[in-house]
Amino acid sequence: MKAMQVRNGVLGINETSLPEGAGEALIRVTCSGICNTDLEIVRGYAGFEGTIGHEFVGVVEASDERPDLIGKRVVGEINAGCNHCELCLSGDTRHCPDRTVLGIKGRDGAHAEFLRLPAVNLLTVPGNVTDHEAVFVEPLAAALGISERADMGPDTKVAVIGDGKLGLLCSFAMSTLTKHTSLIGKHTSKMNIAAGYDIGTFEASEITHLNSSYDIVIEASGSESGFASALDLVRPRGTIVLKSTFSGKPVWEAWRVVVDEISVIGSRCGRFEPAIRLLESKRFDLTSLISEEFAFGNALAGMEKAASKGVLKVLLNMQN
Amino acid sequence: MKAMQVRNGVLGINETSLPEGAGEALIRVTCSGICNTDLEIVRGYAGFEGTIGHEFVGVVEASDERPDLIGKRVVGEINAGCNHCELCLSGDTRHCPDRTVLGIKGRDGAHAEFLRLPAVNLLTVPGNVTDHEAVFVEPLAAALGISERADMGPDTKVAVIGDGKLGLLCSFAMSTLTKHTSLIGKHTSKMNIAAGYDIGTFEASEITHLNSSYDIVIEASGSESGFASALDLVRPRGTIVLKSTFSGKPVWEAWRVVVDEISVIGSRCGRFEPAIRLLESKRFDLTSLISEEFAFGNALAGMEKAASKGVLKVLLNMQN
Repeated sequence: MKAMQVRNGVLGINETSLPEGAGEALIRVTCSGICNTDLEIVRGYAGFEGTIGHEFVGVVEASDERPDLIGKRVVGEINAGCNHCELCLSGDTRHCPDRTVLGIKGRDGAHAEFLRLPAVNLLTVPGNVTDHEAVFVEPLAAALGISERADMGPDTKVAVIGDGKLGLLCSFAMSTLTKHTSLIGKHTSKMNIAAGYDIGTFEASEITHLNSSYDIVIEASGSESGFASALDLVRPRGTIVLKSTFSGKPVWEAWRVVVDEISVIGSRCGRFEPAIRLLESKRFDLTSLISEEFAFGNALAGMEKAASKGVLKVLLNMQN
Repeated sequence: MKAMQVRNGVLGINETSLPEGAGEALIRVTCSGICNTDLEIVRGYAGFEGTIGHEFVGVVEASDERPDLIGKRVVGEINAGCNHCELCLSGDTRHCPDRTVLGIKGRDGAHAEFLRLPAVNLLTVPGNVTDHEAVFVEPLAAALGISERADMGPDTKVAVIGDGKLGLLCSFAMSTLTKHTSLIGKHTSKMNIAAGYDIGTFEASEITHLNSSYDIVIEASGSESGFASALDLVRPRGTIVLKSTFSGKPVWEAWRVVVDEISVIGSRCGRFEPAIRLLESKRFDLTSLISEEFAFGNALAGMEKAASKGVLKVLLNMQN
């Protein structure tokens, strides 16, 4: 089969055997999404080698554990635990120290014709959710997962910094939980997408009047300046949620976290079920976040496109 | 009166008038403690000019609002709110955006013959607590204040990084709340103080076996490497508490906070009442943390001493 892989630090489309993992379900990928984490991995983040990609929708070809899934359209939770440690036994495979993560850690990923995952990771896709929507389940779950980490209610004031695809998804997710979501960005066309759902939008250059006014600020820009802005926007004893993974070591004004007694909360993944239900409700048109779809044979051009300024979600279509 | 002041960035002992603040209580300082924050202020942290110092015990000389306090031995909460804003009206003067802070922000401090504070900030010192103990109320309250910010119970595993006076006080405070407190340090003589109270002690160079094993890690070393160690020691979804205020912008591996979904919690001040009760109980001998006491006339030498390697608490005695 064909797979987009990092080998010895070099990205390429390689002819390779089916992914390992006897006993796990085999999924024929129909569509995958390029995440910024994929781009960071190519830049060296996490030191991963192998098939990249972790956002996908596909059809189950084989599944010893759950034969009922064969032929079903599925998405899949990307963390697979060891099933033996204390965390796994408590149900938290997402933080198992020996976990593998699809296309990120010790497990070949989704930018390929086939992938494997434990059957327990798979969730079927409702009939009214298209492939182009289902491919957003993983990042939307990650956005909704913020509420697992930061207490919020309908009156919580939330700001999302960054109008890229992650920031937009976070603003969508937060607007289902509170009446007061703001998106701070730099691109009118992107912010207009959020504005269409009654999310307040503000130009990043004009927000000093918002200083210290948010209970929760979500840093989804992945930039050092984004974190500095978050420190400005959050109220004393408020919460900053870090969503972006990127390599390198940014600087930060740690003393402000102490003086204003701020909580800085890391948030990585979320549960898939709420994301599938939200897609099923059709509340948001996630296809408005798709910049372009590339045939898999042209996947390297897709990666280049995804790395370009101003681009939202780039999809890879495995069917042609 | 005499006061130790930063003027145009230069530290000196100056002859000056009584502190401003008509209507506030006037306190004759008997003893003050030098905090690392004092040293940071002299280095430029917080841009403060005026009389430094915020750890003290003294006797009330005048108090229009609370005449019953006159002649009483007191300690004082160092934050004074505006009393008008939403935070002050909710009782949280410590985070009032317009607050003044004794010897730190907009209010002359405690390394002086006299200071002023609102009477509401003052707490009387029990008879069995000496001046040398009472001067620790502020930093001990700050250490106990960690429990206001991070959930903990008797089985919570807590590590404190840094065996300076702040780290030792944090380890004391935590050991009153959980059975499992460890102190990570570099100086046998200091760690022995903690060991005397059944606090586990570990050499900073020999802690790799403790990686990912603590629910809460308190960074009290004020160093970049201390935060890096905290990231190693804390378990996934655990909490790192930042206690040290220092100028500059350290670097941090923000991605690890995201991937392991860690909470980084700033903690600054605490309520005085629990600290006074702990001192009253005589559970800890805080005088073991005093390295030296200087007569106030010799306060600059005291500051130099406090800045020296390996020194714990340096006190200034205003009575001679």
